[in-house]
Amino acid sequence: MITLTSDFGEPYPAAMKGVIYSRTDARLVDVAHNLPRQEPRTAAFWLREVLPWFPPAVHLAVIDPGVGTDRQALVIRAGDSALIGPDNGVLMPPARGLGYPDPEAFAIDPDHEAFPATGGEGSTFDGRDVFAPAAAAVHEAGVEKVRKIEWLSETDPEDLWFPDPDLRGREASGEVLVVDRFGNAVTNVPGDVLMDRFGEEVAVNGTAVPAERSYAGVEPGHRLVTVGGHGNVELAVNAGRGDEAFGVGVGSEVTISY
Amino acid sequence: MITLTSDFGEPYPAAMKGVIYSRTDARLVDVAHNLPRQEPRTAAFWLREVLPWFPPAVHLAVIDPGVGTDRQALVIRAGDSALIGPDNGVLMPPARGLGYPDPEAFAIDPDHEAFPATGGEGSTFDGRDVFAPAAAAVHEAGVEKVRKIEWLSETDPEDLWFPDPDLRGREASGEVLVVDRFGNAVTNVPGDVLMDRFGEEVAVNGTAVPAERSYAGVEPGHRLVTVGGHGNVELAVNAGRGDEAFGVGVGSEVTISY
Amino acid sequence: MITLTSDFGEPYPAAMKGVIYSRTDARLVDVAHNLPRQEPRTAAFWLREVLPWFPPAVHLAVIDPGVGTDRQALVIRAGDSALIGPDNGVLMPPARGLGYPDPEAFAIDPDHEAFPATGGEGSTFDGRDVFAPAAAAVHEAGVEKVRKIEWLSETDPEDLWFPDPDLRGREASGEVLVVDRFGNAVTNVPGDVLMDRFGEEVAVNGTAVPAERSYAGVEPGHRLVTVGGHGNVELAVNAGRGDEAFGVGVGSEVTISY
Repeated sequence: MITLTSDFGEPYPAAMKGVIYSRTDARLVDVAHNLPRQEPRTAAFWLREVLPWFPPAVHLAVIDPGVGTDRQALVIRAGDSALIGPDNGVLMPPARGLGYPDPEAFAIDPDHEAFPATGGEGSTFDGRDVFAPAAAAVHEAGVEKVRKIEWLSETDPEDLWFPDPDLRGREASGEVLVVDRFGNAVTNVPGDVLMDRFGEEVAVNGTAVPAERSYAGVEPGHRLVTVGGHGNVELAVNAGRGDEAFGVGVGSEVTISY
Repeated sequence: MITLTSDFGEPYPAAMKGVIYSRTDARLVDVAHNLPRQEPRTAAFWLREVLPWFPPAVHLAVIDPGVGTDRQALVIRAGDSALIGPDNGVLMPPARGLGYPDPEAFAIDPDHEAFPATGGEGSTFDGRDVFAPAAAAVHEAGVEKVRKIEWLSETDPEDLWFPDPDLRGREASGEVLVVDRFGNAVTNVPGDVLMDRFGEEVAVNGTAVPAERSYAGVEPGHRLVTVGGHGNVELAVNAGRGDEAFGVGVGSEVTISY
Repeated sequence: MITLTSDFGEPYPAAMKGVIYSRTDARLVDVAHNLPRQEPRTAAFWLREVLPWFPPAVHLAVIDPGVGTDRQALVIRAGDSALIGPDNGVLMPPARGLGYPDPEAFAIDPDHEAFPATGGEGSTFDGRDVFAPAAAAVHEAGVEKVRKIEWLSETDPEDLWFPDPDLRGREASGEVLVVDRFGNAVTNVPGDVLMDRFGEEVAVNGTAVPAERSYAGVEPGHRLVTVGGHGNVELAVNAGRGDEAFGVGVGSEVTISY
């Protein structure tokens, strides 16, 4: 199984699929292709949430603001799974999410004959020309044999960290990590701070807000804090945008008192 | 085969797919994931239109404004197919569309050990933690054996009905059921009222409008009534938005005289 | 393998998939379903770029502003692959992209019993009722046997051409062919005019602009010319919209001096 994640929208992911299907019969699964453009942090957050639910797979993730520069292209081995993408940190939080805090990392040699479409007339589509054939080849070789692939060499990857929240007494301070497409502001505060408080009010940056198990716990248009599928505290509005109602965006500080 | 429908956008459906692929080798097919948020009626309309074109399958439909409340989670058997989703009526119009006006319905026990990811730290993602494993299990057991699944018990499901149009003489009165993403206002008036009128004008809420077999029957920007792929009368604009041009939305009354 | 391309958004492509899966076990691959509405030229451009990366396949492409009119429905044979869609030219540039400038073309008889859902109560959904069953049937028969299918007859297809650029000396004149969803204005000027100029400035319609291998070659918000994955010159803005910054749209003239 090979999963595909990008910020390409349409139809570029189909070119990657064509390249892969030309080389392997693997099952392909789309994770997301409309992620915010050129934001490795947001992609890393979602991949960390979603990939652990998959069986062992080769996970392709092309969120690559440095395409065309000399940034490395990576294959990271996380047990029975592999992560393939640019060396900007996007692969490391999901590797940790899969249980591999210190995974083996390999740099791809894009000038190897395994990548016949690279170079040429100046076009730059590493998703199609480097990452897709690499994913097909790693799938065909088997993740456990990745070390033997001749166009890979060990390297020290870039990393990307999400800040830890500050939990003391009955107060949690953290920040907004991502805003999803519905406007829910996902913080780094773990959901268990709201355990046993559902149905009560907590203070969010000093203002009282109901803590609810579900959006439907408040009337449409009203604010709440809840716990998303990712297990973190979300600032939300039932049938509305939490980011606007709370006046927050990625990186905003959030203090929850309970 | 398992089909997936939701209002989740990206990347949450991928978590459901990972859970399913961890339990079964079934073929997965996306029906839609960008449906209007928390609108069981709109989802029910589209599922009723689309699902009858599929071979027998397990159809997962997670449009669930009551997630986190005590609403039931259902498995509905419609012959060789099953529908799985929340008990808010969304599954019943497609069950009728599949030819089962009075289907067997079962409530899922989410606290059964078949659903290990439920409960825990307060997170609420029944699509991933209840509905996806239920769909995989029903697929693996076989729809005809659904009655033997130990975490299912018979129940009486919520229902959801689309209003019938009022047809008399040369006038049909109905309402707008859904507005599609292009702005076409889909009514509950059956397309056959326009049979033999194509190329002529009819009156829509008192105003003359051409009845055409296709959008191209009028100039771009001009209004028309036509029959959509669903077989109902649509209020449309060629290369424009019918809902705005006709001043209608979901629930608006529409009278067509012909 | 059958690929699917349309401007239908959701959920109509799923009805096509249901029809196909009811008739064949082929692997289905989505190319794009959110293409600009009723623009065969844009679809033809992207299909020409993407389809050559696929292994032999049946390629279904339903961008069909003439649906419901008497325009023909086509099967075009391009070697081991087939292209199926309306007779408005959309299939011909991808046929050339696959290496078949003068392909065999056949008209589908939609009144044949192979298409039981056509006609009826005035509904018009040829994607589901004609093109999808035709694609399944061609896949099942095998592309090499397409000539023997009884509901096909030879025809002379409509065509659609992209203009050639005018290259002389150190100046290339062309036009914008498509604008992608990010606002990148893709021209018909071949990327090799920028070869050896990366890192320097060129003149675009008389104004100096940096030529860069990647968007990251300029600061966010700044203009550049680069070469897209399609191999053509793009007018772009790093993390912004090139069409707006350069004041161009589809058909705008672009002269690049270098």
